[in-house]
Amino acid sequence: MRAILLREHGGPEVLQPADLPVPSPGRHQLLVAVHATSVNPVDIKVRRGGGASRPMPIVLGYDVSGVVKACGPDAGDWQPGQLVFGCPNLFGPGANAEYALLDGRAAARKPASIDHTTAATLPLVALTAWEALHERARLRAGQTVLVHAGAGGVGHVAVQLARLAGCRVLTTAGRPESIAFCRNVLGADEVIDYRSGDFVARAHDLTGGRGLDVVLDTVGDDTFQRSIDCVAPGGQLVTILPSTPGDRAPLLLYRSITVHYEFMGARVANDLEPGRQGAILSSIANLVDRGLLRPHVSAVFPLAQVADAHRQIETGHTVGKLAVTVA
Amino acid sequence: MRAILLREHGGPEVLQPADLPVPSPGRHQLLVAVHATSVNPVDIKVRRGGGASRPMPIVLGYDVSGVVKACGPDAGDWQPGQLVFGCPNLFGPGANAEYALLDGRAAARKPASIDHTTAATLPLVALTAWEALHERARLRAGQTVLVHAGAGGVGHVAVQLARLAGCRVLTTAGRPESIAFCRNVLGADEVIDYRSGDFVARAHDLTGGRGLDVVLDTVGDDTFQRSIDCVAPGGQLVTILPSTPGDRAPLLLYRSITVHYEFMGARVANDLEPGRQGAILSSIANLVDRGLLRPHVSAVFPLAQVADAHRQIETGHTVGKLAVTVA
Repeated sequence: MRAILLREHGGPEVLQPADLPVPSPGRHQLLVAVHATSVNPVDIKVRRGGGASRPMPIVLGYDVSGVVKACGPDAGDWQPGQLVFGCPNLFGPGANAEYALLDGRAAARKPASIDHTTAATLPLVALTAWEALHERARLRAGQTVLVHAGAGGVGHVAVQLARLAGCRVLTTAGRPESIAFCRNVLGADEVIDYRSGDFVARAHDLTGGRGLDVVLDTVGDDTFQRSIDCVAPGGQLVTILPSTPGDRAPLLLYRSITVHYEFMGARVANDLEPGRQGAILSSIANLVDRGLLRPHVSAVFPLAQVADAHRQIETGHTVGKLAVTVA
Repeated sequence: MRAILLREHGGPEVLQPADLPVPSPGRHQLLVAVHATSVNPVDIKVRRGGGASRPMPIVLGYDVSGVVKACGPDAGDWQPGQLVFGCPNLFGPGANAEYALLDGRAAARKPASIDHTTAATLPLVALTAWEALHERARLRAGQTVLVHAGAGGVGHVAVQLARLAGCRVLTTAGRPESIAFCRNVLGADEVIDYRSGDFVARAHDLTGGRGLDVVLDTVGDDTFQRSIDCVAPGGQLVTILPSTPGDRAPLLLYRSITVHYEFMGARVANDLEPGRQGAILSSIANLVDRGLLRPHVSAVFPLAQVADAHRQIETGHTVGKLAVTVA
């Protein structure tokens, strides 16, 4: 099958076409004919050699929308020919290829109202945002939530999910295009322009000095540490990056704050109730089909040009998601 | 009233007798005739000048068992003459004195089956252990929990609460006396002698390589960081100290771990549902009166010798708690 292969770590140019054998589904797996995939920051991280070590060579691409071709014996209630979307195991081969494997328990029926190209942009970011907000922080209506980088991949889904949960949603953005997107397309209650002022002071102003019930950090490092300054006592901070509180740890303690480290890939990799992810993706598909959740695809690349999608993500200026078409 | 006052930071010798006015209860407060108090590590920290800054001079002593003398207008359902136990606001005057103030919402009726001296050793450690295990980690029966320093103040209550919740309880101890206490008095399922081997390796052995559902760290620093190595994917780490994960942050992320920073003083100081602490202390009193929870008092000091109780805590060799009698 056609695939794009990473044989060595490096820049986007290391992504090269290859002809690989079609994989066979394991016990819980589906073999899926990939119609589309997407690019996420984790693709960049793995390509550069960061994060957990993985055996080379590697097929990247951790989102799939496609058609079930074959099912492992314990892959759940699936039939060949069904339309499916989900995330390949982040420690196994991805979907920059004509065929990919999904854990059938962690996958769901593709939303009917959107095409494969759009559906493929959802699984990784929607699972991340849902797990972060609903399973980890357990959002309640009426809470005030700050989602960093609301115009980003995870951010734009998180802002929408938090609004649907009845929360007041603040988000940060820097470029005029991103600010307009957060305000006009996502309908965030407040958009904090982090370039024109300190988001911590603004978050305190916007909460009457109380601070935030929940902060979802998708940026990391300094943004994570400064976020600690605006979480309310008893509040929660969710990060999707390996950030440390550093000298803000005493503040975490005095305010009795909870820090959730959220990595959606942990579930399938560690066999931690992978069926929960199938249920989450079914909920996501329902929200999309009812018009309540809208993924935003800002550009589409053919698989042969996936390196260009990497270059676009690396600008840090992508609004919403980039899709990659395969079939 | 007689009190022991801290006029400057330093060693135990800075604790000096003083004659102070009897305080007046505020809106939510009770004036309590102190029968007994206790010494906790936070007394040592404040005496040395660590932690959050507080105006001097300071009356230490953050536990009370005594008799209600007067009630603020919104202190809850209290009457003078009732027996009460609870924690003074950790950012206000403590109970190394004949009278102290308690937030009436965060206090409860003293357990009937134990005397004031024993009751006074419970509030701070029991609230810490309960909030850590039940409110933050939300223990479930069948989970495996590691409580560090099970022979300590918070530890000896936490081991008992985790057992009552139906968990398998592992604990760490070093001295033969502490190991025997954890095994024979507390009935921990496994006591890990941290002096004779690596607790991380032992915890992995004892869980078939899976790791722990919940770790409660009462030690901090290196113990906190090494604890990250033995939390199961999807598990929880609760700390009562301002520890940082340092270079273990990527492991927190890959395993999707939650870190709870637990400080029982945050609730009254920030008016975060203080009534929850009253309810928790009522539950604690019921467990004590039913013989299910046994505070362990290893020594009793009169108020005039509270400096000796500080010296004893500073050895790090105290089993259970130290009580201080006032009336």
